[in-house]
Amino acid sequence: MAGEYLYHKIANSLEHQIRSGLLKEGDKLPSLRTLCQQHQISMNTAKRIFLELEALSLIAPRPQSGYFVSTLPARQLPLPAVSRPDNIANVRTPDLLLSKIYASMGREDLTLLSFAAPAAELLPMAKLKKELLHATKTLHQGGIKYELAQGNVNLRRMVAIRSIGWGGSLHEDDLVTTSGGMEALSFAMMALGKAGDTIAVESPCYPGILELAVSLGFKVLELPTHPITGIELEGLKQAIPHIDFCLLIPNFNTPLGSCMPDAHKKEIVELLAKHQIPLIEDDVYGDLYFGKQRPRCCKSFDKEGNVLWCSSVSKNLAPGYRVGWIAPGRFKEQVLKLKLRHVIASTSITQEAVANFLRSGKYDTHLREFRKTLEQNYHHFARAVADYFPEGTKVSRPQGGLTLWIELHPTVDTLKLHDILLEQGISVAPGRMFTLQDQFEHCLRLCIAVPWTAAIEAILKKIGALVRSPRVLKS
Amino acid sequence: MAGEYLYHKIANSLEHQIRSGLLKEGDKLPSLRTLCQQHQISMNTAKRIFLELEALSLIAPRPQSGYFVSTLPARQLPLPAVSRPDNIANVRTPDLLLSKIYASMGREDLTLLSFAAPAAELLPMAKLKKELLHATKTLHQGGIKYELAQGNVNLRRMVAIRSIGWGGSLHEDDLVTTSGGMEALSFAMMALGKAGDTIAVESPCYPGILELAVSLGFKVLELPTHPITGIELEGLKQAIPHIDFCLLIPNFNTPLGSCMPDAHKKEIVELLAKHQIPLIEDDVYGDLYFGKQRPRCCKSFDKEGNVLWCSSVSKNLAPGYRVGWIAPGRFKEQVLKLKLRHVIASTSITQEAVANFLRSGKYDTHLREFRKTLEQNYHHFARAVADYFPEGTKVSRPQGGLTLWIELHPTVDTLKLHDILLEQGISVAPGRMFTLQDQFEHCLRLCIAVPWTAAIEAILKKIGALVRSPRVLKS
Repeated sequence: MAGEYLYHKIANSLEHQIRSGLLKEGDKLPSLRTLCQQHQISMNTAKRIFLELEALSLIAPRPQSGYFVSTLPARQLPLPAVSRPDNIANVRTPDLLLSKIYASMGREDLTLLSFAAPAAELLPMAKLKKELLHATKTLHQGGIKYELAQGNVNLRRMVAIRSIGWGGSLHEDDLVTTSGGMEALSFAMMALGKAGDTIAVESPCYPGILELAVSLGFKVLELPTHPITGIELEGLKQAIPHIDFCLLIPNFNTPLGSCMPDAHKKEIVELLAKHQIPLIEDDVYGDLYFGKQRPRCCKSFDKEGNVLWCSSVSKNLAPGYRVGWIAPGRFKEQVLKLKLRHVIASTSITQEAVANFLRSGKYDTHLREFRKTLEQNYHHFARAVADYFPEGTKVSRPQGGLTLWIELHPTVDTLKLHDILLEQGISVAPGRMFTLQDQFEHCLRLCIAVPWTAAIEAILKKIGALVRSPRVLKS
Repeated sequence: MAGEYLYHKIANSLEHQIRSGLLKEGDKLPSLRTLCQQHQISMNTAKRIFLELEALSLIAPRPQSGYFVSTLPARQLPLPAVSRPDNIANVRTPDLLLSKIYASMGREDLTLLSFAAPAAELLPMAKLKKELLHATKTLHQGGIKYELAQGNVNLRRMVAIRSIGWGGSLHEDDLVTTSGGMEALSFAMMALGKAGDTIAVESPCYPGILELAVSLGFKVLELPTHPITGIELEGLKQAIPHIDFCLLIPNFNTPLGSCMPDAHKKEIVELLAKHQIPLIEDDVYGDLYFGKQRPRCCKSFDKEGNVLWCSSVSKNLAPGYRVGWIAPGRFKEQVLKLKLRHVIASTSITQEAVANFLRSGKYDTHLREFRKTLEQNYHHFARAVADYFPEGTKVSRPQGGLTLWIELHPTVDTLKLHDILLEQGISVAPGRMFTLQDQFEHCLRLCIAVPWTAAIEAILKKIGALVRSPRVLKS
């Protein structure tokens, strides 16, 4: 244990020195032997430390010379600018584009980089199967009967217990389970709004939210959004007189991966409460932080039940189980009624399996591993984009989550890029999906929750070459 | 097998002679010995035949005298009249009543006769558990990933194959899976209507349909409905100019258990198609016929994709699995989009388990047993109501399904009856839930899908006594 502790301490300290710029590009690291002597660790531990830093693309060995600090591509490529949606009118994403994208969902012959969904290889499949078998035993009558609309109590209890982790203090009775996070958002939107109402969202924004909002007859107001800190407070303040409610993904939203600072969260919650404007908080990526600590949720600052906090296990454990939940605050009765009316109840057995998985501690073990993979993948992706994409490419610096957002030269049309790549068996998400405004046509979202392989590197190389080609220029 | 064949043939023939009135109340049946000699069967087979008829309450033994035809209560009590809703205005069911009823759903301490849901004891729990384990193996990646919005292909294939059984000719591609039948109805209603539209339904009508329709902003027009043959054609014809779409449960609707004759189905489908009025057909009880043959569906007469056929396994196999489906005809694209927007996809593993269960033949075996139990229960319930309820009580003659509808003296208030019974640990459904009009306050729905026991008989006796009491009279 002491060895493990030292290992992490040294690795973290070296990582920090590199990321902070104390150790600069091309600097030589101490030799393995020096590291052993300095810290009283074994040669094997020293090697593991260097291997981990190498996996993060932070250092690279040179033959006969030891390890050197690599170029740090995430720092090299500039950030996309803060978005400035003009909100002149909502222009729906072409149906054709959406059907193309969603049709690729089930295709085994594609390399799927288009969805904010984890590859099955990164999920604990075997353990979950066992948990499902176990659930048929722990669940009353094997889950064959209708359960109460509020949903499986074991799952609600586990989610409530875990709320401490993000500054919350939920009780199991505050929660209603849903069929994934999307149903939670759907009930929240239906509980709050009627046709003609205006909903404020981030920009760029998850397309599922835009689609649902438009189909419910809402007007969508896209807020200026910073790639690191999320929506701009000033933009929200100006929007207040025009909006009926808000839907934000404060923690590692897709596509940007931004994370709203605590102070922003607090200010937004207080501002909205003051104006009686409800906030739907989608926290589906909250557990997928790259840093040391899980960020707080807006819900943790909510004193008046004005925040409808939604989440699920679809982004980090088992999308196909359709297990999600909502803490609807003062809108609980409306949400319960909507659930009863639209679906009566949720599937019992998958909720019970997830509840057991959470309770057993296997979830935390899995998350630790999964987060590490995601963070490493982010560095791989960012490094490869820096290596292969042309001058002027901008790239997000996600602090968590499943996706990377790339801004190409303004003359590039990522719809064209999408079509060409699809013919070659690669599915990516064009920027136009993430807005109802005339923007992001030259942007691209990539899912980083896939095993990092030479094949993925080759794909990024291919995309980098392709975006230089006249075939992808705007008409 | 020859023995089994003879057994069923003789039992059915005797049942028919009694029900048709050829053998009359009090008539003596042949002795066991005579039955054996007449039909060349064993004494054991003859005994089994008499026991089965006794279980149906059709015959009863008298000491030292053999078996005699019992009173046939189902014939004795009159039918409720054809409903005549005035449709002056929609008057919503009190929220309090609905919350009371739904709150009883999860209570283990109650005798639940209030829901149209099968008791777990009547469902193949052990077999389904095994099927769930098996599904984790047959399903690609154990069902951990998002599946396509259209849903599990094995389930769609099995439902399509079985459509022959009700005169249909569905292809797997015609179907979209849903989270139970209610989600199918919800997508259908949202695909067809907008706030202010008028939907025509049966009267009395399943409360879930009324609740959902009102919450979506629809006006509800309740159609005159015959307790045996369903909605009256004349009433529908007169309603045509005023309605935007229809939702019917043509086969064994709840609460009445009526079954629309084929000729009616055909005429309705043609009439609605002529006026371009879509029909949502809820066939969730279609497999639960008491007769010899599964009735046809309206969908089987649908040439223009005007019928949205919905069903599930919630009424006959596993409510808690939330497995349903819809064949939306010409509205398929709209339904697919709604599903994608509101829930993205369904739970994979339960769909696969149900698909395997259907394919294995275990479903048909279970259904045969379950239908027999339901039919026997219907006769038990009807007999007990005739025995214990006061003069003037009317009772439905369901031809299938899970429920019995009882019309009491017009001075009785079944809301009061409900409250008194709930205090005594018995949950029933007051008639007022089944309409948005001022009607059915003296009616009552009972679920017959519970094991028939002396305790249930005692409950019916208790209700029969209670409805004579001044405590349940209208204020």
